[in-house]
Amino acid sequence: MHLDELNWFDVETYLRSEDRLMIVLGACEQHGYLSLLTDVKIPLALADAASELTGVLVAPPLNFGSSSYFLAYPGTFSLRVSTLLDVVEDLVRSAHRHGFRRILILNGHGGNDAARGRLFEIATELSDLRLAWYAWWQSHSAEQVALKYELKPSHASWMEAFPFTRVSDLPEGVKTPPHVPGLMGASEARQVYGDGMFGGAYKADPVVMDELFAAALEDVLTLLRFE
Amino acid sequence: MHLDELNWFDVETYLRSEDRLMIVLGACEQHGYLSLLTDVKIPLALADAASELTGVLVAPPLNFGSSSYFLAYPGTFSLRVSTLLDVVEDLVRSAHRHGFRRILILNGHGGNDAARGRLFEIATELSDLRLAWYAWWQSHSAEQVALKYELKPSHASWMEAFPFTRVSDLPEGVKTPPHVPGLMGASEARQVYGDGMFGGAYKADPVVMDELFAAALEDVLTLLRFE
Amino acid sequence: MHLDELNWFDVETYLRSEDRLMIVLGACEQHGYLSLLTDVKIPLALADAASELTGVLVAPPLNFGSSSYFLAYPGTFSLRVSTLLDVVEDLVRSAHRHGFRRILILNGHGGNDAARGRLFEIATELSDLRLAWYAWWQSHSAEQVALKYELKPSHASWMEAFPFTRVSDLPEGVKTPPHVPGLMGASEARQVYGDGMFGGAYKADPVVMDELFAAALEDVLTLLRFE
Amino acid sequence: MHLDELNWFDVETYLRSEDRLMIVLGACEQHGYLSLLTDVKIPLALADAASELTGVLVAPPLNFGSSSYFLAYPGTFSLRVSTLLDVVEDLVRSAHRHGFRRILILNGHGGNDAARGRLFEIATELSDLRLAWYAWWQSHSAEQVALKYELKPSHASWMEAFPFTRVSDLPEGVKTPPHVPGLMGASEARQVYGDGMFGGAYKADPVVMDELFAAALEDVLTLLRFE
Amino acid sequence: MHLDELNWFDVETYLRSEDRLMIVLGACEQHGYLSLLTDVKIPLALADAASELTGVLVAPPLNFGSSSYFLAYPGTFSLRVSTLLDVVEDLVRSAHRHGFRRILILNGHGGNDAARGRLFEIATELSDLRLAWYAWWQSHSAEQVALKYELKPSHASWMEAFPFTRVSDLPEGVKTPPHVPGLMGASEARQVYGDGMFGGAYKADPVVMDELFAAALEDVLTLLRFE
Amino acid sequence: MHLDELNWFDVETYLRSEDRLMIVLGACEQHGYLSLLTDVKIPLALADAASELTGVLVAPPLNFGSSSYFLAYPGTFSLRVSTLLDVVEDLVRSAHRHGFRRILILNGHGGNDAARGRLFEIATELSDLRLAWYAWWQSHSAEQVALKYELKPSHASWMEAFPFTRVSDLPEGVKTPPHVPGLMGASEARQVYGDGMFGGAYKADPVVMDELFAAALEDVLTLLRFE
Repeated sequence: MHLDELNWFDVETYLRSEDRLMIVLGACEQHGYLSLLTDVKIPLALADAASELTGVLVAPPLNFGSSSYFLAYPGTFSLRVSTLLDVVEDLVRSAHRHGFRRILILNGHGGNDAARGRLFEIATELSDLRLAWYAWWQSHSAEQVALKYELKPSHASWMEAFPFTRVSDLPEGVKTPPHVPGLMGASEARQVYGDGMFGGAYKADPVVMDELFAAALEDVLTLLRFE
Repeated sequence: MHLDELNWFDVETYLRSEDRLMIVLGACEQHGYLSLLTDVKIPLALADAASELTGVLVAPPLNFGSSSYFLAYPGTFSLRVSTLLDVVEDLVRSAHRHGFRRILILNGHGGNDAARGRLFEIATELSDLRLAWYAWWQSHSAEQVALKYELKPSHASWMEAFPFTRVSDLPEGVKTPPHVPGLMGASEARQVYGDGMFGGAYKADPVVMDELFAAALEDVLTLLRFE
Repeated sequence: MHLDELNWFDVETYLRSEDRLMIVLGACEQHGYLSLLTDVKIPLALADAASELTGVLVAPPLNFGSSSYFLAYPGTFSLRVSTLLDVVEDLVRSAHRHGFRRILILNGHGGNDAARGRLFEIATELSDLRLAWYAWWQSHSAEQVALKYELKPSHASWMEAFPFTRVSDLPEGVKTPPHVPGLMGASEARQVYGDGMFGGAYKADPVVMDELFAAALEDVLTLLRFE
Repeated sequence: MHLDELNWFDVETYLRSEDRLMIVLGACEQHGYLSLLTDVKIPLALADAASELTGVLVAPPLNFGSSSYFLAYPGTFSLRVSTLLDVVEDLVRSAHRHGFRRILILNGHGGNDAARGRLFEIATELSDLRLAWYAWWQSHSAEQVALKYELKPSHASWMEAFPFTRVSDLPEGVKTPPHVPGLMGASEARQVYGDGMFGGAYKADPVVMDELFAAALEDVLTLLRFE
Repeated sequence: MHLDELNWFDVETYLRSEDRLMIVLGACEQHGYLSLLTDVKIPLALADAASELTGVLVAPPLNFGSSSYFLAYPGTFSLRVSTLLDVVEDLVRSAHRHGFRRILILNGHGGNDAARGRLFEIATELSDLRLAWYAWWQSHSAEQVALKYELKPSHASWMEAFPFTRVSDLPEGVKTPPHVPGLMGASEARQVYGDGMFGGAYKADPVVMDELFAAALEDVLTLLRFE
Repeated sequence: MHLDELNWFDVETYLRSEDRLMIVLGACEQHGYLSLLTDVKIPLALADAASELTGVLVAPPLNFGSSSYFLAYPGTFSLRVSTLLDVVEDLVRSAHRHGFRRILILNGHGGNDAARGRLFEIATELSDLRLAWYAWWQSHSAEQVALKYELKPSHASWMEAFPFTRVSDLPEGVKTPPHVPGLMGASEARQVYGDGMFGGAYKADPVVMDELFAAALEDVLTLLRFE
């Protein structure tokens, strides 16, 4: 259930019996051969699936994240970290004002981790608010799937190559992860990462992808219990 | 043509022969009986239609705008003005870095007007960048359609009741615009506006809506010529 | 009644029986052949006249506004939008702290419109505060005078050429409004606008100017009733 | 010579043969029995006198400063320190853009001292800009006059009681400076300072005041040589 | 080699033949039974040891980090995330201005991770700057030591209990990690974490600690080669 | 008593019977032949001595201050003024949250004065907090010692040449203060100040230094009574 299908009366009704919300953070940035919106699409798909099962409302996704290091790849739109923190704060405060009290943030992009710092500050201020954060690709579940199939998880690799993030054919084979000499700026990052994938296989069997998605969805459902 | 269907290679190719981009600003806020995302949906529909005709790329929409005055209506998510300005700056700078040189901003929400001030500052700094701003509902074209059919344009009225923004039945009849005693905060705004519509008819004949959309699209196509 | 003629004891006395205040926003920017302070002088003259009739206190004017687009015209001093918003917030919060509860902001400059966004946020936070905003040149009253005399209102034209804003002779005749290709930076704005006037007649008959001023003053007096 | 008497053509002409500017910073804050605008009026009077003698242009004064500690005195309007710094930066950058290269800042208010920190940052960035800062009441000249007449200089005392800052009768006699227990907030400051004067005589002989003004003016003229 | 033992002549000399610098980030926050400065002391000890071996200069430590979630534990001093980012930016820019071109940031505190986002932005802007970031407790080396001795690494546990971070006796035994219900504010964090330790053993054999330190030092030395 | 020797239990105990705290601000900047950390070392030494006598807790020093004007001297690390203000605010708010109610800020660096403006704002907001500020080198006590021995106090001169700030031999003799042409940026400051000392004797007799330190310590002890 998305806000775009609702009007404010609907949300007022919803809030009479429910106080949970899912907020989706992502990025619009290079993902090798995959969609520039990969980091939005995956957590949004998880939110949609979880919403279908639980009825919990999904806020419209923030289509941009903090991705300065990929700005040498055309199509990357990056928010400064400071901007990102302000946006996330504004979204959470808006939700809190309406009476949402349990908010699960589904983050699709590593560069958005800094937002956690701001969320801790808000949680300290708003003591009746419960917040949870889920980064599917860093989860124990995802790690387990990767281990099971002996696949190396990395940016823009098989791990993010779901049917709904593919926008072109994917290379065969496995990429050797490049040597990363520290914390790189945008130009150096492009030189080092080439096609933008960080290493490992470009794709995996659909069975793997389904298992990965199911495992992450299970996590989301668990987190939505806010225990 | 949206970024979510593309990868970075595609954008690099695009930029070899084209330097135009459409950025869509909107809001997630009460629109009476209409979708909370009305202010995103309309400019995005215009961008899509214009993109189909011209091939100009459309950035993913910013799903939130500055709407503090509607925060007493559940489902409104508001960015502070300062946040909005930073986001818009970040998007334009990202685009400029990649080589986009003519950017048309399609804004769907009056509360975002403040972003123009920041854009003037950026335009002053980046002298090789051309910027245009289009607020369809404030256009001469929209005014003409309203005058022709003797309809009063206003927030959440017939004017925004396109098939794709409707999420429930709409009331019959015409609402008398309430008396607005100055610049109101959120609580007072809800008291004054009640269902959230600002006055006039709740809906108009499909013919009117098609004419309105066509007129606005014509404006967008003109602006995309950047003359 | 201006603060410069008063000491704090006087204001304390004033606040025992009155809670209204006028704040004047303007700009120090090119106005063609007119004074660089035109946008301060006009709302200040209105405030003075209204103060004489009502006894409502006038805060000292903010002599600078957001005018980045005119920075290629010498003598323009521009606040960044973010700075302007902070100043306006500080002034309103200071006034509120002292017990002012009805504040009319008389704005003389279009570039300051963004401040409205911040004012909405403050109004939402301070629920016992009533705010009104008046931009005389955008008023229905001013439009009526322009229509009556078939004069086109525009920046630095007859409309702002009051005796107290004139600092030199004014050209005869009527200027054709230049073509404005979007949202321009400072250098382009100077190329496009030349002498800085936006089009129409450079001056009008004193009768017109008196009528215009009287109409705007009437608006101010109405707004000061805060109904 | 003030900007309000000029249009942009005049400033362009001025800049052909001159690159100096005076910027006046002040405050709108309690000054005991004196005008709330005392801290603007004094440096502005100095700037006017110096301008008459040298022809150097005077920017319109910033009518507000950083005065949070006086917010319990009605009529005080305070900018946050952060706001003040941004305003001062914007004014100096605007001037620099037009070609002003030697800027003398005449500050009338102690609370504005923090702006010096930002000015050092700007001076480091803009190496062709020369900046000078003058706080008349902290000058060696003012100290000499005070010593000569055995008068204690302090806020809102005789030292600021010029004919043009007086807005009421002044008490006779001498006030014992109160004990100041550290860095006080607004409420405590009012309790401690009572009528707002910091101690010493409330007024001095006109001869003293003339001598004081003349001494400060001499300083301004010296600084305008930018040696 | 620390800056406190040097004057500016010494640094100028240093920069003639060397362009490396170590910057130490930490926190002043609860660490269970350990010193409140634990997160400064550990990376500083590593920096000192590495400096002794390589001669690379160490900047004075930033004694505070972003620790809002521990503010219910007395003695915790937290910078807002936004403040932290600004401090880190200022330090790196200062160093870059002097000619430091290879900077290794030794971070002792997880809450400071957000600073990486700002560093990526700076690295993108300053293309001649090489940055590396080291968080000893998240390193592969530390993980290996923990695995070897079957010790669970966690905040304020054995892992941080070096002789130089101990300020009191440490409990015997092993603490069961508490259940963490999402992203907690300060009050909830104190309820959940009790004594502040996150779980595992309170202390380890000195042999383990020496091995841990040596492994981390080896990492630092490797990173200082900036390969 | 420093926080680095304590854990949070200790601070909780401390706060049961005491609510005072000393915060040390300084700088890492050129001090001629003296240590780059001179401005930290001196107030920290005072704090240590006062703590020994009174048991009042000392927070870890902020090792950086606002020193942009010295950025042309290698080894200077400068916080922007805005950053400094935020840091100081965060430290004071953290302390206040724990129950510290009387805070003495010992500042070692003139460029940090701007922080006082922010502290006034905080004091206005937190009415149960008492703040005091001490800049030893600007004190009446220090002035008296200088007068007594006919020594001119200035940056990096004898006045700061304590045994614990010396890191090299000091020149003999007396330096003539250079002519300072206004408010200088970093490059100009280096040209003007040469070795970085501002004028006067490079060193004084140990008896003088002991007397100076004792006088300043007496001030600190007096301020710690918060009368």
